[in-house]
Amino acid sequence: MSLPTVTRQYQLPKLGSYLDLELKEKPVNRPKPHEVLVKVHAVSLQYRDLLIAQGFYAAKVISEGLVPCSDMAGEVLALGEGVLDFKVGDRVCANFSMDHLYGDPTSAIIESSLGGQSHGVLTQYRTFPAHSLVKFPEHFSYEEASTLPCAAVTAYNALNGPVPIKAGDTVLVLGTGGVSIFGLQFAVAVGATVIATSSSDEKLQIAADLGATHLINYRKNPDWDKEVLKLTNGVGVDHILEVGGFGTLPRSLNAVRVAGHLHIIGAVSEDKSDFNPITPTIYRAITLRGLVVGSVAQFKDMNRLISANPTKTRPVISKVFSFEEAREAYAFLESQKHVGKVVIKVA
Amino acid sequence: MSLPTVTRQYQLPKLGSYLDLELKEKPVNRPKPHEVLVKVHAVSLQYRDLLIAQGFYAAKVISEGLVPCSDMAGEVLALGEGVLDFKVGDRVCANFSMDHLYGDPTSAIIESSLGGQSHGVLTQYRTFPAHSLVKFPEHFSYEEASTLPCAAVTAYNALNGPVPIKAGDTVLVLGTGGVSIFGLQFAVAVGATVIATSSSDEKLQIAADLGATHLINYRKNPDWDKEVLKLTNGVGVDHILEVGGFGTLPRSLNAVRVAGHLHIIGAVSEDKSDFNPITPTIYRAITLRGLVVGSVAQFKDMNRLISANPTKTRPVISKVFSFEEAREAYAFLESQKHVGKVVIKVA
Amino acid sequence: MSLPTVTRQYQLPKLGSYLDLELKEKPVNRPKPHEVLVKVHAVSLQYRDLLIAQGFYAAKVISEGLVPCSDMAGEVLALGEGVLDFKVGDRVCANFSMDHLYGDPTSAIIESSLGGQSHGVLTQYRTFPAHSLVKFPEHFSYEEASTLPCAAVTAYNALNGPVPIKAGDTVLVLGTGGVSIFGLQFAVAVGATVIATSSSDEKLQIAADLGATHLINYRKNPDWDKEVLKLTNGVGVDHILEVGGFGTLPRSLNAVRVAGHLHIIGAVSEDKSDFNPITPTIYRAITLRGLVVGSVAQFKDMNRLISANPTKTRPVISKVFSFEEAREAYAFLESQKHVGKVVIKVA
Amino acid sequence: MSLPTVTRQYQLPKLGSYLDLELKEKPVNRPKPHEVLVKVHAVSLQYRDLLIAQGFYAAKVISEGLVPCSDMAGEVLALGEGVLDFKVGDRVCANFSMDHLYGDPTSAIIESSLGGQSHGVLTQYRTFPAHSLVKFPEHFSYEEASTLPCAAVTAYNALNGPVPIKAGDTVLVLGTGGVSIFGLQFAVAVGATVIATSSSDEKLQIAADLGATHLINYRKNPDWDKEVLKLTNGVGVDHILEVGGFGTLPRSLNAVRVAGHLHIIGAVSEDKSDFNPITPTIYRAITLRGLVVGSVAQFKDMNRLISANPTKTRPVISKVFSFEEAREAYAFLESQKHVGKVVIKVA
Repeated sequence: MSLPTVTRQYQLPKLGSYLDLELKEKPVNRPKPHEVLVKVHAVSLQYRDLLIAQGFYAAKVISEGLVPCSDMAGEVLALGEGVLDFKVGDRVCANFSMDHLYGDPTSAIIESSLGGQSHGVLTQYRTFPAHSLVKFPEHFSYEEASTLPCAAVTAYNALNGPVPIKAGDTVLVLGTGGVSIFGLQFAVAVGATVIATSSSDEKLQIAADLGATHLINYRKNPDWDKEVLKLTNGVGVDHILEVGGFGTLPRSLNAVRVAGHLHIIGAVSEDKSDFNPITPTIYRAITLRGLVVGSVAQFKDMNRLISANPTKTRPVISKVFSFEEAREAYAFLESQKHVGKVVIKVA
Repeated sequence: MSLPTVTRQYQLPKLGSYLDLELKEKPVNRPKPHEVLVKVHAVSLQYRDLLIAQGFYAAKVISEGLVPCSDMAGEVLALGEGVLDFKVGDRVCANFSMDHLYGDPTSAIIESSLGGQSHGVLTQYRTFPAHSLVKFPEHFSYEEASTLPCAAVTAYNALNGPVPIKAGDTVLVLGTGGVSIFGLQFAVAVGATVIATSSSDEKLQIAADLGATHLINYRKNPDWDKEVLKLTNGVGVDHILEVGGFGTLPRSLNAVRVAGHLHIIGAVSEDKSDFNPITPTIYRAITLRGLVVGSVAQFKDMNRLISANPTKTRPVISKVFSFEEAREAYAFLESQKHVGKVVIKVA
Repeated sequence: MSLPTVTRQYQLPKLGSYLDLELKEKPVNRPKPHEVLVKVHAVSLQYRDLLIAQGFYAAKVISEGLVPCSDMAGEVLALGEGVLDFKVGDRVCANFSMDHLYGDPTSAIIESSLGGQSHGVLTQYRTFPAHSLVKFPEHFSYEEASTLPCAAVTAYNALNGPVPIKAGDTVLVLGTGGVSIFGLQFAVAVGATVIATSSSDEKLQIAADLGATHLINYRKNPDWDKEVLKLTNGVGVDHILEVGGFGTLPRSLNAVRVAGHLHIIGAVSEDKSDFNPITPTIYRAITLRGLVVGSVAQFKDMNRLISANPTKTRPVISKVFSFEEAREAYAFLESQKHVGKVVIKVA
Repeated sequence: MSLPTVTRQYQLPKLGSYLDLELKEKPVNRPKPHEVLVKVHAVSLQYRDLLIAQGFYAAKVISEGLVPCSDMAGEVLALGEGVLDFKVGDRVCANFSMDHLYGDPTSAIIESSLGGQSHGVLTQYRTFPAHSLVKFPEHFSYEEASTLPCAAVTAYNALNGPVPIKAGDTVLVLGTGGVSIFGLQFAVAVGATVIATSSSDEKLQIAADLGATHLINYRKNPDWDKEVLKLTNGVGVDHILEVGGFGTLPRSLNAVRVAGHLHIIGAVSEDKSDFNPITPTIYRAITLRGLVVGSVAQFKDMNRLISANPTKTRPVISKVFSFEEAREAYAFLESQKHVGKVVIKVA
């Protein structure tokens, strides 16, 4: 088979709007030693991709000509010299930070994040360092697998930090975005009890179907922190996947148990505030843990969990768009109508 | 309600045979400060109880007049001064080593083991230090709860040591005794994959019903270690609950992965051997971990797991005997016809 | 020996000023079962004691008639029934939260904190639950030992949380208060490198004498975070004992490495701010860990460290006051002239 | 600078005797992509090298033409394409198992062990995968650094496993071989107390000079296990670096505390025995942990410890031989006259 020599890829001429995304043709390089050439089949969108495109992302990113998106699933087309762990035809994902192999991240690792400080994956063909790739669970389609790198690994890392979730713990997930849904599934798979919140009863029903034990509609019940305390006999939950930023943080600090864990994942809420999170953190001995997705080692561990628990950990895909509909996919994500992930089918 | 002043209890005048068990009447003390008086409802038998009665147990035990058995579930009848954590009517178990509150055991803690270095629970009424008691999961009967202190806590401790089981790990359980069955259930509840062995297809079917993914009849397939390797792509399993002693240890050392974990729990097999376990331990970087049941803290953690996963962690009771049939219960255990636990109903 | 029947103790009729402290005579109770009567020899002051007396402490405390102070070292005078772990004459400290035996704190545990939600130790005689006491290192005087319960255990807990300090780590201690000095000593004892800050070269010299490798006078060098980065090749430190609150937090977040640990201990600084600590926490994967002193188990572990490293872990006592000079001791603490601990000699 | 095209290297035509070692000339390859060409300056000998040469090593090794030895320190001469982490002139060691980057070993990783399943380092020039190299502490000479890969990393791994050594722990080291001496130094550096044994008072004096607190001459005091118990108030030690095999194992099992840790490192003793280590392992809840040196990640962590504690962690070199005296170096190691490491200066 002859290898591709050209790829069509999206680029953002400058940050500001996803409507500016342009499709360009670029030459495709043969894989250098220790690289792998991948045919991208599917890309999933993150809320981070939206923030970056809009210029709202607080960390440094490539500001001109960025190839966006961090999450893809694809097929190995060719191997550079010295690559032993893969063969042509393998179905793989790339890790969010390509150089994050194990352990803690570093500044240099963060700079290797796809679609941010490094060019991303919204392209037909791309080479990756072999060390950045992982084979995904066999029973997944490309569309399903494309949802793993950022959202699923983040949820896995949150639940498997220095104080990992234990069976019997109670976990609170906020809303039904990608990280929350994966967190819900992983928590259920390991024998924890999940409390899920949403503004929509329909979305809550999906959470229930995935195994959440307790459901809170925060539109009907805005004091959801009090409801969480009621459900936990006044104790609070062990872990919270805190994706809401200052819009939810004050209530999350109430809803977590003394000496519990808030995993600070994203800042979806634009509701800025002068709230002081430090005082409750001290007086109730809470841990606030920031995290930046996770490592290749964690990605592999997560895939073992998924493969061993196939019925409980199926990615929830909200909608699949064609490669040409990339902007529409961004718009759908922005509309917050999704439960789970928004996917772009590339090939 | 007036408190009992007399209890009927079994005692072993000397070690040698469970047939020597005698029923005696003894006065019951009011609970002293920080003690709790418990009405024993059910007692479960351990293989250890059999070995102790027969004089085969290698560790020190009370040799004259021992009140046997470590595992009971009962009802709080009265509280000594200063007891705050319990109230009359609470349904409780006692921890195997009464003074093992948390962390590592010590010599002194091992001396507080019920039915061994301390008198046991095969009695109608008994006081316990309040710190030795735990409330058991609400959905359990006394008979079910009586199976927890030794077998279930041992299995829980094995799977939750310094390198705890992770979802996606593979766990091998040998046979269908109490520890193995609980280990199987806990492993399934936390998302691990279980391989179970037995000499009987009927027993294997029970293991399958409880969630074991792979079954090996070691009578038909005596090279079960090779079968385990085949099932794990030649890698071996992450954890083994090794209850078989020298009869199974050589094959277990083959069946565990490099850098895997053997939890050395019991020595059911009488098949003594000059097998050297040290060389494979070094060359394959294996950890052999001896353990002595577990702590009150672990018992409580285990109960949280059970309460959060009620359908997956129901104790398997092989047969229930009346208080008068204690000797018959021992004989049934000795016959090895049981799957799961043998229980004596006291009240 | 006849036991005391009366104790002289300080009380705060209401919160507002330590100048209101009154010496009162109160009857002394015989120890109840599982209690121990202690003759208090020395009490050390915490910054918390000052905040409580002034009514500035943000957590709940006894507001009328509080016996203040959490930290004492004393001598066992008498044992209640059932106490096995101590004998008359033993030299002991009480744990800050009397009921915090091991593991995570809970609301109930926090309520057992001496000199806060429970009456404290600024008294001649007091009974304690036996479980709250620990024997202190043999080579310590009562004055030295009185400094351990709050400041030393807090520093120990900070450095021995879910991600414990490792030899070769770099630790930043802010200022030369009690927690910082103990943190410095414990870090040096375990082979870590310490960076210390202070506004005074004299105090920094003391830090150097105790083993700090790098010294920063933040008066001369207000951009001390940049200095920390320079000293760590731009990487930042692994652990910070963050005692300064919003006055130091922004710089601490700069000075910690990606994926590093801020142990949020106190809020010495009154400099309130609308600083948002969450964004850097996410983008640099930092952990902010609030903590409430520590457990009896940690206290014992700490004592093992101290006893094994006697020359490196000597408490630094700034000044000793007599029992009658309690108010002067508070005033001295308030003046911030101290390096290390302020002690009141009771007996 | 022109790169070397030929290397002189030792080879074992067959296993049986180190006297058969032959010096051969072989071409030197340019480094391929992601490889590094190293000029070897010094090689240290392990007991394993002796066992392999003699054909006594129980694991699989290259049996014809083996280039022996696992431990070298050298200088980077040239970089293959894509190597970013090193530059020409860097002073480096290679990890024992070249492919053991982090986490647990695997069969494939063990196959990458130098001087065993892969060719070793007793050569003037050699290429290594870049991922197998680590820069060594700056204050070390090449001779000193050559002692690190096997002995020091093994000792570090032993003390930093799933239950890492804590300050205040007591560690027992057996004899004064390389692993024991490094273990002693690392334990002292992190604030633990060390008990050292030897057959020689002179060697014990060296152990004392390095920081051992207690010394036992096992020739004079063959019941050294009882002496260890006496020194630990009857409790036993927390960790033992067990390098003696069946000659010392029974006493080590006596000398370790209940729930303590035996790190099973080597089998120096030829004293085979039918001793059963399993029964005490169960009844005293002991962990026997086999280990195979360690990972690149551990090597780097160890170097951080060493660099931060330069005076306490200086390698102890018994004797340095020239490249031509390789056989004499083996003979000296065999004589057991060494304290610490035997080194061959290559360049």
